Amino acid sequence: MKSGLSFLLAAKRCEIDELQQLALTSALVNVTGRLIHGLQRERGLSNLLIGSHGHQFQPSHQKQIEECREVEKELRACFDNLDTASASVGHGARLFSRIAYVLHGLDALDGLRERVASLQWTTRQSTDAYVRLISGLLAVVFEAADSASDPEISRLLVARFNFMQGKEFAGQERAAGSALFASGRADNAEQHRLLHLVESQERCLEVFGAFAQPRNFDLWQASQDSATLAELERLRRVLCTVAHGAVLDPQLSQAWFDCCSQRIDRMKAVEDRLALDLLRACEDKVALARDELSSYESLHPAATGAGAMSFFEDAPALGPNAPAAYVANPQGYGLQLERSILELVQEQARRLQNMSEELDTVRARLNERKVIERAKGLLMAHRQLSEEAAHKTMRQMAMNQNRRLIDVAEAVLSMAEVLPPR
Amino acid sequence: MKSGLSFLLAAKRCEIDELQQLALTSALVNVTGRLIHGLQRERGLSNLLIGSHGHQFQPSHQKQIEECREVEKELRACFDNLDTASASVGHGARLFSRIAYVLHGLDALDGLRERVASLQWTTRQSTDAYVRLISGLLAVVFEAADSASDPEISRLLVARFNFMQGKEFAGQERAAGSALFASGRADNAEQHRLLHLVESQERCLEVFGAFAQPRNFDLWQASQDSATLAELERLRRVLCTVAHGAVLDPQLSQAWFDCCSQRIDRMKAVEDRLALDLLRACEDKVALARDELSSYESLHPAATGAGAMSFFEDAPALGPNAPAAYVANPQGYGLQLERSILELVQEQARRLQNMSEELDTVRARLNERKVIERAKGLLMAHRQLSEEAAHKTMRQMAMNQNRRLIDVAEAVLSMAEVLPPR
Repeated sequence: MKSGLSFLLAAKRCEIDELQQLALTSALVNVTGRLIHGLQRERGLSNLLIGSHGHQFQPSHQKQIEECREVEKELRACFDNLDTASASVGHGARLFSRIAYVLHGLDALDGLRERVASLQWTTRQSTDAYVRLISGLLAVVFEAADSASDPEISRLLVARFNFMQGKEFAGQERAAGSALFASGRADNAEQHRLLHLVESQERCLEVFGAFAQPRNFDLWQASQDSATLAELERLRRVLCTVAHGAVLDPQLSQAWFDCCSQRIDRMKAVEDRLALDLLRACEDKVALARDELSSYESLHPAATGAGAMSFFEDAPALGPNAPAAYVANPQGYGLQLERSILELVQEQARRLQNMSEELDTVRARLNERKVIERAKGLLMAHRQLSEEAAHKTMRQMAMNQNRRLIDVAEAVLSMAEVLPPR
Repeated sequence: MKSGLSFLLAAKRCEIDELQQLALTSALVNVTGRLIHGLQRERGLSNLLIGSHGHQFQPSHQKQIEECREVEKELRACFDNLDTASASVGHGARLFSRIAYVLHGLDALDGLRERVASLQWTTRQSTDAYVRLISGLLAVVFEAADSASDPEISRLLVARFNFMQGKEFAGQERAAGSALFASGRADNAEQHRLLHLVESQERCLEVFGAFAQPRNFDLWQASQDSATLAELERLRRVLCTVAHGAVLDPQLSQAWFDCCSQRIDRMKAVEDRLALDLLRACEDKVALARDELSSYESLHPAATGAGAMSFFEDAPALGPNAPAAYVANPQGYGLQLERSILELVQEQARRLQNMSEELDTVRARLNERKVIERAKGLLMAHRQLSEEAAHKTMRQMAMNQNRRLIDVAEAVLSMAEVLPPR
């Protein structure tokens, strides 16, 4: 017959398994991040190539494609190594489903490259295609971020995901600006799009700031050198203030690309640091949990024999809704071994409960974001708005009504039935 | 090299595994529910026994203990059969940790019975001990409710958990009332406690009503026969309105016990129905998922070959934040097989995403409850209040400030640092 001790051990082993699974998923996310980085660059160079009607940027474009192919091979190998037979991969169904989608995109990538090289597609078409593939890759990262049940790890994952999403907006900004400069002519719609991308970056980096470890937020701040930033802001001003239809200097496209790339490459360095910290946090937690496990294993189950009345004495009960504050402050382990196992059990249950409550807080923040995106999608479909316009509408409503964006989003969603897509 | 199709299949298999795991956990919850029911009755009879100084109720008390022993054996067998070596049990660590706690309680149960039989303990001590053990058992039920990732199943689990929790408050009411009647004297503190228990029952049944299938809510309403209810309310009035220290008729204790038991036994019948519906829902979903799986398995992976440009055409992209409304309305499957696999992948990702969003909504409701309980715990610790008083204080604040209870609870928690436990 299994004792309380054997379930105490089993619970600890589950924790260890999950952390190890996270470390594995995290490695997958690292390779995904590298492919995203390469494709972001390929997207920008493709726009320069198309914009210059194939007269410029061919060598660097070709070189970038080869780099991407190498990383793609690595990522496919990671996918092949995933244990798809076991359901123990956190949130397996969703992760696998995202990977299936990404694989279709990767299969189509050479077709996209052909259309770019033969100048069959416009910069807008090419940009949209890369955005779609990268968005699929980010969805893989997102599922990994959504699967942790340790709040500290979850916070690191949320910080990393938002940083990567912010970097993607920076990449889209680079691609859009490259296309504009290379086309030689200002365009109102594209200018609005650029402004929206700048703002979206800032939003993501705010969330990153809220969840990241302070030292990593500082690292990000320090990594932005002011000369590059000043140049970026100058070029942004040029791009966004020239009147619709007026001339833009195509010679600036290389300067724009380099300046954006410098910033994005620095973001990649921060991203790598985030990945390393995450892996270390997983490893530290696994090591700690292993120590605890082996100290539990040295206990003898017979010590938890029948008649252990301490269960009904002193320490507060652990119910499904036992309030955390009420059950805090575990007492020091008693002298009797029997007593000490019960206290270990209580301590473990309490810790898991506190973790789950903290996790709810982290997830609530993630959830707010999802609610806002869904409300935006609803407005886009119902009023045939662009993403930028839908976002602006909601922000305006929030300002007019003096409410938070999340409240407006919830109000929009509660109207879903009367706001059908057109 | 694994194809998109192989991950489509893997995702579907994960869904099936999880549903099967849920069906297994659900069987465990059923036995847990039966033991809870037996212990609730044993608790009430123990109070009658102690209250009558051992002069009455001995045979029925003894018979109840034997019944409980049988169910306890069954539950221990269920625990033994749990696959503790695999981490694939949903939320394994928390479930196992709750079971470890319960096993300690069960080991101590005979000691509790001795103290009751030898009249060493007061009714209050005995009640508290049974409450603690049952609360541990309910925590096992709660972890099972918290582990589903299918929102429909999750809703059924939340309904069932709240119904079981409501039934436990009804059981505590029976025990407290039994002790009062058997003691022959009204007591102010116990009367307040009774009122609080009645109110707590009602709160749980409200949540049950919000999450249950309408036919099960109707079943619950229909199962309450008005003669029993009228008698219950009459006895409640007698119990709660007699002045502190005045005489209560001990002869009413059997009537009270029978009337409460009749109601609680009917609740058990509804609970059994909820369990059956849950199991059926799991089975239906497994069958459906299996059908889908075998239809996917008949597809050929070669059909998803490279150059499948449809990835970049038509259908909207699936990003991490792809708004649900925007990606709704999947188009009919195309004629080309290659196209149809991509659409299956997109459909699957969309469905999993919608499920996860619905689940957030269900969990948000669960979360509200946890927040209220934590805030209550904080007030209890900081102001040395009873649970009843803490709840009343928060409700009063909500009324005074014209805010929802959840808003007040969040405000209380945000003050945690300046409200240390005394």
